[in-house]
Amino acid sequence: MGSTEDLDHPQIILQYNSGFLVSKVMFTACELGVFDLLLESGEPLSSDAIAARLGTSTTGMERLLDACVGLKLLAVELTQQGALYRNTEVSNIYLTKSSPKSQYHIMMYYSNTVYLCWHYLADAVREGRNQYERAFGISSTDPFRAMYRSEEEMLKFMAGQNSVWSICGRDVLAAFDLSSFTQIYDLGGGGGALARECVSLYPNSTVTIYDLPKVVQVAKEQFIPPEERRITFYEGDFFNDSIPEAELYILSKILHDWDDDKCRQLLAKVHKACKPG
Amino acid sequence: MGSTEDLDHPQIILQYNSGFLVSKVMFTACELGVFDLLLESGEPLSSDAIAARLGTSTTGMERLLDACVGLKLLAVELTQQGALYRNTEVSNIYLTKSSPKSQYHIMMYYSNTVYLCWHYLADAVREGRNQYERAFGISSTDPFRAMYRSEEEMLKFMAGQNSVWSICGRDVLAAFDLSSFTQIYDLGGGGGALARECVSLYPNSTVTIYDLPKVVQVAKEQFIPPEERRITFYEGDFFNDSIPEAELYILSKILHDWDDDKCRQLLAKVHKACKPG
Repeated sequence: MGSTEDLDHPQIILQYNSGFLVSKVMFTACELGVFDLLLESGEPLSSDAIAARLGTSTTGMERLLDACVGLKLLAVELTQQGALYRNTEVSNIYLTKSSPKSQYHIMMYYSNTVYLCWHYLADAVREGRNQYERAFGISSTDPFRAMYRSEEEMLKFMAGQNSVWSICGRDVLAAFDLSSFTQIYDLGGGGGALARECVSLYPNSTVTIYDLPKVVQVAKEQFIPPEERRITFYEGDFFNDSIPEAELYILSKILHDWDDDKCRQLLAKVHKACKPG
Repeated sequence: MGSTEDLDHPQIILQYNSGFLVSKVMFTACELGVFDLLLESGEPLSSDAIAARLGTSTTGMERLLDACVGLKLLAVELTQQGALYRNTEVSNIYLTKSSPKSQYHIMMYYSNTVYLCWHYLADAVREGRNQYERAFGISSTDPFRAMYRSEEEMLKFMAGQNSVWSICGRDVLAAFDLSSFTQIYDLGGGGGALARECVSLYPNSTVTIYDLPKVVQVAKEQFIPPEERRITFYEGDFFNDSIPEAELYILSKILHDWDDDKCRQLLAKVHKACKPG
């Protein structure tokens, strides 16, 4: 930064300008099932074939595919039959629905919910509050009342959080040696992907997912198989209900949702509940 | 790409995921006047002072400023009075309204119009058409009828295009030696920033901006001073009206707006009008 060349050709400004276009190209190819189709087909396909199989316009699909090639999310080969597209290795792993490391769910949450809320970022900064009302007509000071406005929305959010942990959950839990803790509470543990990483990494641990009753119900039904006996559940609202005693509490991706007062209140409550030592 | 490390920690996926957040942080700081205030103040300011001067919430502003620091659009200094923020050199040049290379107008166009149209990219690919109807309730197959839906919108678009040329117009026009051409038409020349670069770079040239009557009117009133005698105007619709003879035609950022048939039609018309040689 700051050299004459950077000042004449401000790469960061141009890149930041296009950031939303890049996000939406990836999200849209994901949403339309481009990467799933190319994985299943097992061979490179033409844009016409992809458009026909996915029921889209041909010109729209061709432009989308070429944008994905530019972003290195697809590779293209020019043959006598025209251009043939195939997934890159990264796309097979992260952008297909069936992959264990699929980011599909978090991308759909980003693309359909967060993207629209962020359209109103200037209003958010002016007013100092979330923009679910402008984006979705839901007035709420509690972000989770807005995010969990229907079971469908809640499920999408929980699946999205689980996608994130499939990439970095193990690294986060391995950053410190937690093997001496056997009784762990994951406060706001949601869909339980972090709890699963925890019991897998630390064979002596049991993890209790503490979350709102409706979240716990969905976690049991959709995300944690009943044979996973080392993961248990506790239904409650950690601001208004009691927090049981444990050796270790995980508050992962929780504190950024609340203002400093609420965070202090929650941390004091955890401190009081925590087993001495 | 493709090494084991890249596959475990897919940086491009995470970067692309956040692209829209990055865009909106920059657009919003621009829209709220953060960079203008820091340029005018001539000294670093605290987030509270910035929030008070710009009439925003304090927590919202602090988060926005810290995000800008992360993106290297602002610098921060920790002093005994707390954190003080100032512009980087790049921000002074490109993100302040008063700079000759200001990108403010194109950012506002991107942030308020393009961002929302792109929310519906999946629909655009399915249907093969623009999404002004879903985004703004304007049904039109002609993108310019939608983009120029009011004089205010047209003005914003024209100012935005001019911002782009302030960065790259000279490079584009200098890429080939055009000094032998004296009589040049800029088809769809809009706000005329490229025409101005052209007459400045090639002292023997005159440029005629060919555009829709309402565009020409605004260009004359707002963008091209009357003393600029080497720039003239021609009112018309290049698909339906005649194109006068000239030595050189510029079609800059035009063809991507139209399908192949329309482009062929336009290029054939230009070919026919062009002075031999």
